[in-house]
Amino acid sequence: MRIAGLSAATGVSVATLKYYLREGLLHPGVATAVNQADYDDTHVRRVRLIRALVELGRLSIADAARVLHAVDDDEVSIHEAFGVAQDAMVPHRDRDDPLHADALAEVDRLVERNQLLVRPNAEVRHMLADALVTLTRFDVLGQGDASTTVLDGHLFDSYVTAAVESAEFEIGYVPQHEERSDQMTVTVVGTIAWEVAMAAIRRLALEHASARRFDAVPPPRRQRVAK
Amino acid sequence: MRIAGLSAATGVSVATLKYYLREGLLHPGVATAVNQADYDDTHVRRVRLIRALVELGRLSIADAARVLHAVDDDEVSIHEAFGVAQDAMVPHRDRDDPLHADALAEVDRLVERNQLLVRPNAEVRHMLADALVTLTRFDVLGQGDASTTVLDGHLFDSYVTAAVESAEFEIGYVPQHEERSDQMTVTVVGTIAWEVAMAAIRRLALEHASARRFDAVPPPRRQRVAK
Repeated sequence: MRIAGLSAATGVSVATLKYYLREGLLHPGVATAVNQADYDDTHVRRVRLIRALVELGRLSIADAARVLHAVDDDEVSIHEAFGVAQDAMVPHRDRDDPLHADALAEVDRLVERNQLLVRPNAEVRHMLADALVTLTRFDVLGQGDASTTVLDGHLFDSYVTAAVESAEFEIGYVPQHEERSDQMTVTVVGTIAWEVAMAAIRRLALEHASARRFDAVPPPRRQRVAK
Repeated sequence: MRIAGLSAATGVSVATLKYYLREGLLHPGVATAVNQADYDDTHVRRVRLIRALVELGRLSIADAARVLHAVDDDEVSIHEAFGVAQDAMVPHRDRDDPLHADALAEVDRLVERNQLLVRPNAEVRHMLADALVTLTRFDVLGQGDASTTVLDGHLFDSYVTAAVESAEFEIGYVPQHEERSDQMTVTVVGTIAWEVAMAAIRRLALEHASARRFDAVPPPRRQRVAK
């Protein structure tokens, strides 16, 4: 198919497809004439993967490119590629809060205590540390004066146990008999889509819990006088 | 303090603070002279809240403004404001996949089946539907030909049960005796920071599960010949 056909098949505009081609996220089609190329199902699948990373996973184009490189690189094992992809999925941000180093040490103790097989420099450690710093700074757990000492990571141990159980279930879905790039695609997309699903379920549950706790007291309704 | 002091206290540049002021995210300081104003602790706290929304929650400035409006608006109850904030926290994106309507209906059945007190038009329903569409399209659960029929939401029921339990625990931390704006701040920041924490813990667990499943087989190491 021509690029217009690829656009129709994926719902991505031609301009965006050309951008993906220029940035190397999408492999070139087979040239059929000057300024004309032929695209196939491998392109459709790749465009869908890019959309999953960028729209569902909200990755930057540069981070999506790092994930795609890990998907494509046959030199590294599935597990190593998974690590690269995981690192690329952690948002970059300033980590200038003086508590960050303490929070990171707390995360490392959590990893060690729960005997998690996690690379010592895994970026995701910073993500958990970010959350710890914010929970501490806003005193979300109501510790009062303790809010300048980073929260104790033991708080999360029961969640870690549950998450490990769930993760072994999820990783079990990765097909063993298929091509490496398909395995990687399922792993990466599964990571992102399950994360969005779990976050959405948590938010549904929070709305439910908020309704149960706060909805009994109606607010003043100055707007709603008789029509 | 002057705006330079506010910048020093929060780690946010003066240019960014002026941007927050222009966009109405930050309330003006008390004018002390032409082009000079005085800022206090309420500004420091508000800037920290904006950073939590934008950096940890990765909200757009427009969505952060909607959340802040809900935090500030005394006319609505805590629970209603929580709903507004929840809606603003769902990323905007194209939902042009023909499966999306089916996925949304599946989400609504899940809400009803689990008797969740969720507004009928809550935006977060779309977030779970997004994940369902992606899991279906990439056939993450290995259903083969079934990958054009949206996944059965029963899959998530056990997660919903666990999430409700955890949410009641989290909502229990919202202080009852404090000012409304403080309660809202804790609720909003708690929602975001717990979500990041849970996502990070899930990723740590996935890396662990991947190591257990895939790390036994080393890849070919063409690069690593003897030095």
